[in-house]
Amino acid sequence: MSTVGILGGGQLARMLALEGAPLGVRFLVMDAVADACAGQFAPMVVGDYTNQTALAEFASRIDVATFDFENVPAASARWLTERVAVYPNPRALGTAQDRLAEKTLFRELGIPVPPFATIDNRAQLDAAIAEAGTPCILKTRRLGYDGKGQFRIRSSADADAAWDALGAQADKVGLILEGFVAFQRELSVVAVRGRDGEFRTWPLTENWHVDGVLSASLAPAVLPPALAETACAYARQLAQALDYVGVFALELFCRDGELLANELAPRVHNSGHWTIEGAETSQFQNHLRAVLGLPLGSTRMVGHACMLNWVGAMPDAAPVLAEPGGHWHDYGKEPREGRKVGHATLRAESVDALSTALERVGNALGREAQVAPVITRLQDATPV
Amino acid sequence: MSTVGILGGGQLARMLALEGAPLGVRFLVMDAVADACAGQFAPMVVGDYTNQTALAEFASRIDVATFDFENVPAASARWLTERVAVYPNPRALGTAQDRLAEKTLFRELGIPVPPFATIDNRAQLDAAIAEAGTPCILKTRRLGYDGKGQFRIRSSADADAAWDALGAQADKVGLILEGFVAFQRELSVVAVRGRDGEFRTWPLTENWHVDGVLSASLAPAVLPPALAETACAYARQLAQALDYVGVFALELFCRDGELLANELAPRVHNSGHWTIEGAETSQFQNHLRAVLGLPLGSTRMVGHACMLNWVGAMPDAAPVLAEPGGHWHDYGKEPREGRKVGHATLRAESVDALSTALERVGNALGREAQVAPVITRLQDATPV
Repeated sequence: MSTVGILGGGQLARMLALEGAPLGVRFLVMDAVADACAGQFAPMVVGDYTNQTALAEFASRIDVATFDFENVPAASARWLTERVAVYPNPRALGTAQDRLAEKTLFRELGIPVPPFATIDNRAQLDAAIAEAGTPCILKTRRLGYDGKGQFRIRSSADADAAWDALGAQADKVGLILEGFVAFQRELSVVAVRGRDGEFRTWPLTENWHVDGVLSASLAPAVLPPALAETACAYARQLAQALDYVGVFALELFCRDGELLANELAPRVHNSGHWTIEGAETSQFQNHLRAVLGLPLGSTRMVGHACMLNWVGAMPDAAPVLAEPGGHWHDYGKEPREGRKVGHATLRAESVDALSTALERVGNALGREAQVAPVITRLQDATPV
Repeated sequence: MSTVGILGGGQLARMLALEGAPLGVRFLVMDAVADACAGQFAPMVVGDYTNQTALAEFASRIDVATFDFENVPAASARWLTERVAVYPNPRALGTAQDRLAEKTLFRELGIPVPPFATIDNRAQLDAAIAEAGTPCILKTRRLGYDGKGQFRIRSSADADAAWDALGAQADKVGLILEGFVAFQRELSVVAVRGRDGEFRTWPLTENWHVDGVLSASLAPAVLPPALAETACAYARQLAQALDYVGVFALELFCRDGELLANELAPRVHNSGHWTIEGAETSQFQNHLRAVLGLPLGSTRMVGHACMLNWVGAMPDAAPVLAEPGGHWHDYGKEPREGRKVGHATLRAESVDALSTALERVGNALGREAQVAPVITRLQDATPV
């Protein structure tokens, strides 16, 4: 019986274990925090990802390693690769960790991207702002462990402040300037590629964010089929270029009917949580099938699905549980501001039934604002 | 966060934990065997069900108790009831443990049953055989821990041998003689009743057994709707009479278009495993919703479903995983003759698609005989 090791013990690891258990595999989760929520359903090794003793124990007890957290230090991923099979491969992980490498790959593959430029010094910053226009945003190429490292530039007058804040990082992790995109929609393709190169995508998903955190996802996205095909083709190109194995999400902006690549998330993704009930095979199970070299499962939709994220604290479960197509996912985490603590998925046989269910749940929970954009989209007779 | 205690740590407990986890609850499993397969995904207390120290530890760490094993000694269930909420209640459990009490309840409720008689002495045995006719079967009223205690009577000449084998049990656990039924089909109703009395049934399931072990289940059963309604009405009567909380299965024989009650299983049931993918809400999650006092989920079908049991050892997973609606369930158990080690569920949008999928899987695994009766039924244009 194989044991799958998961670096990171959050809700993604938890759902990987729950959805992967029927395959007959066992799991071992590694996380720096002893009460990581995946530990409620899988054994754990507690240790920082840079702790070689903990990593060695982890590696000795598993047959294959994967990630619930994309910012595992590249050195740790490489160290593991020398000892055990690791999917996705460290190069794919490294590309997704580095905004410049990621966007450069998009561009090389002919996938449209918002304007970006590498920034090595103060002069380059001025030139890049002039080229990209304002507003724009200066970022470190890599996320630190702490998730810091972004400075929003409203006008060229902000350049000094931006450089004061981040300039010291130019020599350490590198900087990138990104132009803003006045997009109308945010979309994602959740895709999976097997060890043998077989590639599948779930139907395109539309996403809504609040304060930068995913709030709602709708699948299938209400979109012209040609746009969905283009998005899936981009995902396929990326997967092939990176020799990717497992599930990933490609986040896209849609501006005036054109798609622009925003980000590659090298793991199961929040915008794919609806696949647990809304698709024949969930992203979690297909990620494990890929990683284990098993045949991939069908990604077809089973009805229409909308996921609502619960951030900070769980709302009352009863209105969702009472819905005919209501499914509840409490990650077993302590409430904390800004923390993703759970989600609900509503599944329905028709767009109308989904819209009505969203309205009932939104009203019952006092979350009308969260469901409103989804309902508007579902009622939109002429999608752009 | 509530903790649900499960007495018994087999595949039913395992699937209860996996399917119940999204409700945000924790689990604690008690089993006499340390490597019980539920222990791969839930913490365990190892101890015999009659071990008061282990039971006390179990009770102290849980908020509500339920069962994966119906033959937990009644005394242990009562002991628990004095300390913690227990669902289903010990009376329901006790009734289902006692063939005589169970069949007497069926009869009292006007639910047709095969002929049966209580046997207290040798003279009653002769009289009962004469009344029920042969073949018939002499059984202990209760299953011992070892599952022994049945003697098949082919003619009245077997009465002496039957009495020699089981007569000594008459004063200890009691005996019952059951007539044979020349049935054409075996059906089951899987049903759930909430703490508040709300009652739901999943669509009727047809079952096929091989050597007394479930081999395949098909849902919805191909049957006249009136028959399905009658079966559900019987289940409702039983649930109300026992003030039942949780999931149970009522096994029925169908003889010449008439239903006869065979057995009540006071727990989630093998003939309901297809509900994981084939119904909006699985039997496992609805059992937990009931036990926790949460709203029950919809029991509607999502397509057509057939479950195939794997007994003894797991076959090759690939043919099932490669099916568009193929779902694999490996319980993580060591192979052993006669042991249920896993199952597969095939889901399809139509009867024809399900039939074709079954044929492919049967051929690929060399299990044509296992799928044949299901395919025959699906192709049966004029169901009896």
